[in-house]
Amino acid sequence: MPNALQDARYEIALASRMLANEGVLDAFGHVSLRHPADPGRYLLARSRSPQLVEPADVLEFTLDSQPVEPPSVHLFAERVIHGCIFEARRDVMAVCHHHAPAVLPFAIAGVPIMPVFHLGAAVGETVPFWDQRDEFGDTNLLVVKPEEGRSLARALGGYAAVLMIHHGATVVGRDLRELVSRTIFMCRNAEFQLQAQMLGKVVPLSSGEAKLAGSLNALPNVVGRTWEYWTMRLAEAGRLPPRGPTSSKTSSSSRKTSATASSKTSNNKRKGITRRTRT
Amino acid sequence: MPNALQDARYEIALASRMLANEGVLDAFGHVSLRHPADPGRYLLARSRSPQLVEPADVLEFTLDSQPVEPPSVHLFAERVIHGCIFEARRDVMAVCHHHAPAVLPFAIAGVPIMPVFHLGAAVGETVPFWDQRDEFGDTNLLVVKPEEGRSLARALGGYAAVLMIHHGATVVGRDLRELVSRTIFMCRNAEFQLQAQMLGKVVPLSSGEAKLAGSLNALPNVVGRTWEYWTMRLAEAGRLPPRGPTSSKTSSSSRKTSATASSKTSNNKRKGITRRTRT
Amino acid sequence: MPNALQDARYEIALASRMLANEGVLDAFGHVSLRHPADPGRYLLARSRSPQLVEPADVLEFTLDSQPVEPPSVHLFAERVIHGCIFEARRDVMAVCHHHAPAVLPFAIAGVPIMPVFHLGAAVGETVPFWDQRDEFGDTNLLVVKPEEGRSLARALGGYAAVLMIHHGATVVGRDLRELVSRTIFMCRNAEFQLQAQMLGKVVPLSSGEAKLAGSLNALPNVVGRTWEYWTMRLAEAGRLPPRGPTSSKTSSSSRKTSATASSKTSNNKRKGITRRTRT
Amino acid sequence: MPNALQDARYEIALASRMLANEGVLDAFGHVSLRHPADPGRYLLARSRSPQLVEPADVLEFTLDSQPVEPPSVHLFAERVIHGCIFEARRDVMAVCHHHAPAVLPFAIAGVPIMPVFHLGAAVGETVPFWDQRDEFGDTNLLVVKPEEGRSLARALGGYAAVLMIHHGATVVGRDLRELVSRTIFMCRNAEFQLQAQMLGKVVPLSSGEAKLAGSLNALPNVVGRTWEYWTMRLAEAGRLPPRGPTSSKTSSSSRKTSATASSKTSNNKRKGITRRTRT
Repeated sequence: MPNALQDARYEIALASRMLANEGVLDAFGHVSLRHPADPGRYLLARSRSPQLVEPADVLEFTLDSQPVEPPSVHLFAERVIHGCIFEARRDVMAVCHHHAPAVLPFAIAGVPIMPVFHLGAAVGETVPFWDQRDEFGDTNLLVVKPEEGRSLARALGGYAAVLMIHHGATVVGRDLRELVSRTIFMCRNAEFQLQAQMLGKVVPLSSGEAKLAGSLNALPNVVGRTWEYWTMRLAEAGRLPPRGPTSSKTSSSSRKTSATASSKTSNNKRKGITRRTRT
Repeated sequence: MPNALQDARYEIALASRMLANEGVLDAFGHVSLRHPADPGRYLLARSRSPQLVEPADVLEFTLDSQPVEPPSVHLFAERVIHGCIFEARRDVMAVCHHHAPAVLPFAIAGVPIMPVFHLGAAVGETVPFWDQRDEFGDTNLLVVKPEEGRSLARALGGYAAVLMIHHGATVVGRDLRELVSRTIFMCRNAEFQLQAQMLGKVVPLSSGEAKLAGSLNALPNVVGRTWEYWTMRLAEAGRLPPRGPTSSKTSSSSRKTSATASSKTSNNKRKGITRRTRT
Repeated sequence: MPNALQDARYEIALASRMLANEGVLDAFGHVSLRHPADPGRYLLARSRSPQLVEPADVLEFTLDSQPVEPPSVHLFAERVIHGCIFEARRDVMAVCHHHAPAVLPFAIAGVPIMPVFHLGAAVGETVPFWDQRDEFGDTNLLVVKPEEGRSLARALGGYAAVLMIHHGATVVGRDLRELVSRTIFMCRNAEFQLQAQMLGKVVPLSSGEAKLAGSLNALPNVVGRTWEYWTMRLAEAGRLPPRGPTSSKTSSSSRKTSATASSKTSNNKRKGITRRTRT
Repeated sequence: MPNALQDARYEIALASRMLANEGVLDAFGHVSLRHPADPGRYLLARSRSPQLVEPADVLEFTLDSQPVEPPSVHLFAERVIHGCIFEARRDVMAVCHHHAPAVLPFAIAGVPIMPVFHLGAAVGETVPFWDQRDEFGDTNLLVVKPEEGRSLARALGGYAAVLMIHHGATVVGRDLRELVSRTIFMCRNAEFQLQAQMLGKVVPLSSGEAKLAGSLNALPNVVGRTWEYWTMRLAEAGRLPPRGPTSSKTSSSSRKTSATASSKTSNNKRKGITRRTRT
């Protein structure tokens, strides 16, 4: 199997677990990457909680969110979020959809999230809203139909993230590390904004500050430090994903390896060791 | 012992510990199931903190909350909550009573909990209130007498949950998984609603949205993913219940097994292993 | 050494660690017991963080807070809190002074804590305030002088607790378990009250309800369940105190035992085992 | 290597990890000490998350923030904060820059932090603000240029801390333990102040109380108790730094030692053992 594809699978598993460990994802939410070799495809896990995603859970989809191989597992009902955004945004290489507690209050109150500390500028000065009811009337709020995904992509426009009323948020990035840092910093920013509101007033960064601070999360210094930090915390929690394509349910001979890898990952909690399954 | 009954005992222990692990139950609260073979009976643990409940703690009661066998242990004083609800609601198979921190503020302020995100619709558009003082004047707020339990059941009516003023809440389900997901999502919803209130306004789902989103938690996809997630978190915390009916205080030969099972469960923390005691 | 005294030493160590584990005590705060054989003495640890207190840390004091034996260790500067309360209140057998985050906001805003859920009635309908500045002008807010301790005891009066402006709280009990449950439930109550305030209004229990619910925490059923729960959580965290009088700094031969006991206590985290040092 | 310098390196690693463990530092923030033998130099780690800093990460800088030896690693872009403060304040021996969640709301709302409980007086009655935009217009909010660091030092003046609008805070101390306790108590104070604000009003300590309580954190009793507490919590989390100068990336023969030390530090979680690498 080409290394780039296998690396991408691992990165999705790692980012899913990382975002779960940092309080962004829980039982719900998902992370995707555009296929490293084919911009007309993207990679997304089967329907599984982010904290548990393994590389072998990651499947390939066309941009109209059809699985490339016939699926033998449940798929995320909301995968059109990813497909439609990859379709609409040629610059986007990574997408995250989540229900993070930090942003839900804003998605309920309809109060805009604004950058209030320097790292919060990572998603830009403006985060647009999208309310499924505007175009589709009463629904169960799942983004399932292609037209719903395209409507969301239109609301996202050229921005870095979109707040989904009564639902959560979707964040994009030009690579996975940008996606992860934007997602986490947007949540921290939201928490600070809510508490500043409780103190009586919220004074956001100026436009000029927001523009200049918007690229802080991409400084090599910052990328290196944060990625090491979030990875170490994930390792400490014993939740690093196993490596290798043969984990999970794709082949019988891999099942034992996966179980071993998973429990050893758990056992490696606090040891900071990433266990590698031989390919 | 019939497998269905033993399974039900295990499910109650599992759900009790799961809800404790997810911050709903603490030293207080309890989960019951209607007897799988006799709708005129229900299953409920002896008086013990939910986090510690084992299958052998689970006893049988008639719908007027009399223990089927003479008890040698303390019983929950508030078991009439369960009996009266099973009596009044033929459709209900599982009941949870709790004092979750997420809902207490609403049960104190008398502010209605409304669905504010899609999964919060799992308990429906309306959660009625019940104030023990209305019918019974000043009491110690425990629901102990049959007439108190029946009053609560009347307030619950056909709804999925009832908020108990100055006390907590009681949630019902047509099966255990529905009960657990309703209970957890209602708590998350309450937390988001309180924080949206702090931002200045709360805009709930529309009636149509609430109706359609109300069954999200029952989608096979969602049930599978959440149950795996909550179970894995419980296993990670080393708090899975032991299996088997001979744990706890029901027989002397089981006491050592129980202690072994319990400490091994604790030792299995982080290993993701469920230890099975032979039946 | 008489068993009652050794048991009391252990109970203080246990309660200190328990209250630290439940978020009431941190680096600061202390728990005392009236001497089981001499009402003119009380037991209190040397100056040490509650989480680390061991039975051998517990010293004897007269009611005017003089150590019975010449101390070779630092003493709590604020021990007059305990001595003066034991002096003024013949019914009190246990005292806790703390800076719990749950109550500090009330001790800053001067907003009374009122019972808002049934278990919150454990400290009664009224918790009086005490402001050191009223009688003593500007001080460093430590309660160090006998007259300051007596002033605090006067403010406590016959109540179960007193809120100390800009400082924290002091809680009393007729036995240790009542003290611990009152302390914890008062904190939970304060948290719920603050959040109900954020929802817009706080409706306390009626006087009648508060009186009746005030003894819930003393029901055998409740005492048993909560004590097991809090103890099990402490054991799970590997923080049970070692038993035995020879731990800590009272004799050289005990130092190694203490270190062994302490690290073995840590190693016993998740195993639920209390290590006993031979007397 | 002189012991004082090696001790200082260890202290910086310890304090960085301690402040990370206490929720003050995260992926960002840094702690410095003035060089023990040369007031014209200071010690600061290379660019690394505080939780991961090891003694060998700690480098020497002149007061104009030039590294004394040619660096082979990334440096903190904001080290001028430390250099400029050491230059302006002859009394200061330790500096911490952070983005603690507890203070960010105040640095956003522009609401002053005031001592509201006795230990909160550790940073004094007044914490001034500094807004980078006042002198420098729109920037990315990093304090990188010497003139920016000098501007910050002017705002700090003779105070114990300065709040940096949209950024965080910087705290100073006359020794490391004063720095750490000031930093932690300022955060706790801020949390209490925000919650008192939610209750409706904030009543700070009087000027006289603030002055007298301002030295509580320096009482030997308090220093000993808190340092033991914070150290024990760090040890319990398995995050004590390794000792010795050969860890980290300064020499190839040390790399293996460092990795071993790091994973053994992790493995020592819950055992309370500090692993010493031979010098």
